[in-house]
Amino acid sequence: MAEYFRELFTPDRLFCPGPTPIPAEVVKASTCQIYHRSEEFQKIFKSCCEDLRPLFGTKNPAVILTASGTGAMESVVVSLTSVQDEVLVVNGGKFGERWEKLVNVYQCRPTVVKVPWGEAPQPEELVRHLTPHTRAVFIQANETSTGAYYPVKEIARALRASGYRGLIVVDAISSLGAHEMNMDAWDIDAVVAGSQKGFGLPPGLAFVALSDRALASFTNRPKFYFDLAKEWKGQKEGRSAWTPAISLIHGLRETLNLMHQVGFDKILEQHRRMAEGTRAAMEAMGLELFAKNCPSRALTSVKVPEGVDGVQWLKRVRRRFGMYVAGGQDELKGKIIRFSHLGFISQFDVIDGIAALELALAEEGSKIDIGHGVKTALGYWAKNPW
Amino acid sequence: MAEYFRELFTPDRLFCPGPTPIPAEVVKASTCQIYHRSEEFQKIFKSCCEDLRPLFGTKNPAVILTASGTGAMESVVVSLTSVQDEVLVVNGGKFGERWEKLVNVYQCRPTVVKVPWGEAPQPEELVRHLTPHTRAVFIQANETSTGAYYPVKEIARALRASGYRGLIVVDAISSLGAHEMNMDAWDIDAVVAGSQKGFGLPPGLAFVALSDRALASFTNRPKFYFDLAKEWKGQKEGRSAWTPAISLIHGLRETLNLMHQVGFDKILEQHRRMAEGTRAAMEAMGLELFAKNCPSRALTSVKVPEGVDGVQWLKRVRRRFGMYVAGGQDELKGKIIRFSHLGFISQFDVIDGIAALELALAEEGSKIDIGHGVKTALGYWAKNPW
Repeated sequence: MAEYFRELFTPDRLFCPGPTPIPAEVVKASTCQIYHRSEEFQKIFKSCCEDLRPLFGTKNPAVILTASGTGAMESVVVSLTSVQDEVLVVNGGKFGERWEKLVNVYQCRPTVVKVPWGEAPQPEELVRHLTPHTRAVFIQANETSTGAYYPVKEIARALRASGYRGLIVVDAISSLGAHEMNMDAWDIDAVVAGSQKGFGLPPGLAFVALSDRALASFTNRPKFYFDLAKEWKGQKEGRSAWTPAISLIHGLRETLNLMHQVGFDKILEQHRRMAEGTRAAMEAMGLELFAKNCPSRALTSVKVPEGVDGVQWLKRVRRRFGMYVAGGQDELKGKIIRFSHLGFISQFDVIDGIAALELALAEEGSKIDIGHGVKTALGYWAKNPW
Repeated sequence: MAEYFRELFTPDRLFCPGPTPIPAEVVKASTCQIYHRSEEFQKIFKSCCEDLRPLFGTKNPAVILTASGTGAMESVVVSLTSVQDEVLVVNGGKFGERWEKLVNVYQCRPTVVKVPWGEAPQPEELVRHLTPHTRAVFIQANETSTGAYYPVKEIARALRASGYRGLIVVDAISSLGAHEMNMDAWDIDAVVAGSQKGFGLPPGLAFVALSDRALASFTNRPKFYFDLAKEWKGQKEGRSAWTPAISLIHGLRETLNLMHQVGFDKILEQHRRMAEGTRAAMEAMGLELFAKNCPSRALTSVKVPEGVDGVQWLKRVRRRFGMYVAGGQDELKGKIIRFSHLGFISQFDVIDGIAALELALAEEGSKIDIGHGVKTALGYWAKNPW
């Protein structure tokens, strides 16, 4: 009966770190379909490449790929490195591991800086591992698997201060829109993002912004679909090399309109507030923050309390209230939960998600003061108004 | 005024060979968004892989990629060939050229059988170019750039009759749904398709079906996003390696429901009838068929009449009536038009498109008997009822 009630009255809601909720205007815009080789479409496409710039903090239009974020990560590796290149990779979770796998598959010679899950790398440690031959440094902004945000600005500053003139590549897939990115000012060369994260779009598009240094550094490794040099050349004129996901491009046009209307500073501020309110709520529920020294503004990871089955807890949230909250992966499976407040999410969404976590935690047998988490978040926002 | 009238009363309509019109049910289904790592989604994903089988004519579930058709072509090359492999490629247009470029980029050693644009290769000619070391033969089913359909069944039969036991790879991107594909019975190893063609979906998904021989032939070339071995393993359980284009998967589920309801034999028969009616109409308009010896059932290509500017003709169709008809590419630019009747297109769509071509042709100064093309198509269908 409880399940039936849920089915009837609660639409599914997403609190996983991608995909994120899609605004109704974007859903509507995404039903549009025009011929991708028409001037009309190419104009839209070009305007999207250009209007992505402020999000990345760069003067160069972004490149749009029809692929997941992983495809965009691969595009950077195959377009900007060669076999035998020395590269530096930070691995502090599943997505750092992905950089490591990618550069290994493409036969670079990586030095891997391992970071304990839930922590961020120290800028000086990266500097220590540079060599005169390091061609590229690969890091995350947000390590989505642990909820840790890496100090990208400080890392880039330290690398450049040491005299490093190679490439700095940042996977900002789950951080763009939640955390500031200012790649030109910070002297970063390639930043990767994905549609289903801060953009409130379905998955299917990925974005790569490139610095002038990167644009002058294309290598001639075998590649075809993920050839950034080719895409850069064509997309400046609105032409993608291969058929793009047209419906998602229309959605992107709409979501960029919304974001420009709201203003990027406000969007960043909103994410800071949602993250801080969420952390206050989680701690009020007696939960321990997992990435406590470097918490992300895109998602909040907390440890599953002793005696609670983390997998069952989230299954219950899903079954009873139709909400998707992500669990831990690999070594963290069942040990943490990852609650996202990324994209088009309001404080009312957050308190609904927190309320569901509270109710389900009590049903799983935890003695908690139901509603205290929600109350604490509301109190936090009341004391820290816009 | 005419343009204004068009803007107000005629929605854009697609008669280009992809993207194709999207049924309203599919548009609606594509607005759905659930977490891609949930059991619910994985069940849907798995059912799509399985329900694609009858379209390919195979017992093996298809692999779904979030990419354009070109990405799927690349996935076959990087997953099933190695550097220095001898391969045979048919190049009779832009898409044959794409196979050629792909195998060259990935350092195979191709023998290229050139076919004049608008014609199809002779099965015996392919057999003549086989060597004892040929690992794979790459062909199109439909050469979309010319409107030629290649006799896939006869080609495969001739290759196998000659004792060839290597791989046969078919780009059926614009033919699947319009032309029969029976890969198991015809002993074909890999068939590639794309969402925006016969499926009535937006672009963004591509499909690869693999034979048992192909599944036993994966190579260990560097690859990551387009690793078919990895996808095959995971997708059997509904898990794609990378985040799939969730909204398009929901659309795919719906379009497969529609196609299964209608029945695949009926869908093929519908395409035969649309193609034959279109050809009758084009000839009645005094237009010469371009691929007259091997016309596709997905699109009809005709020569632009003497004294008519082909580019202007199609621009007028677009501007006045909101319809996209494709022109020729490269050496055929301005010389042919390509009128698609692929996917969810009825006889009423076809006559609208033909009528627009007639009206615009007259406006471009051609002396034609307006309406004769439409009348001829209707007469053809009346004499050849379902």
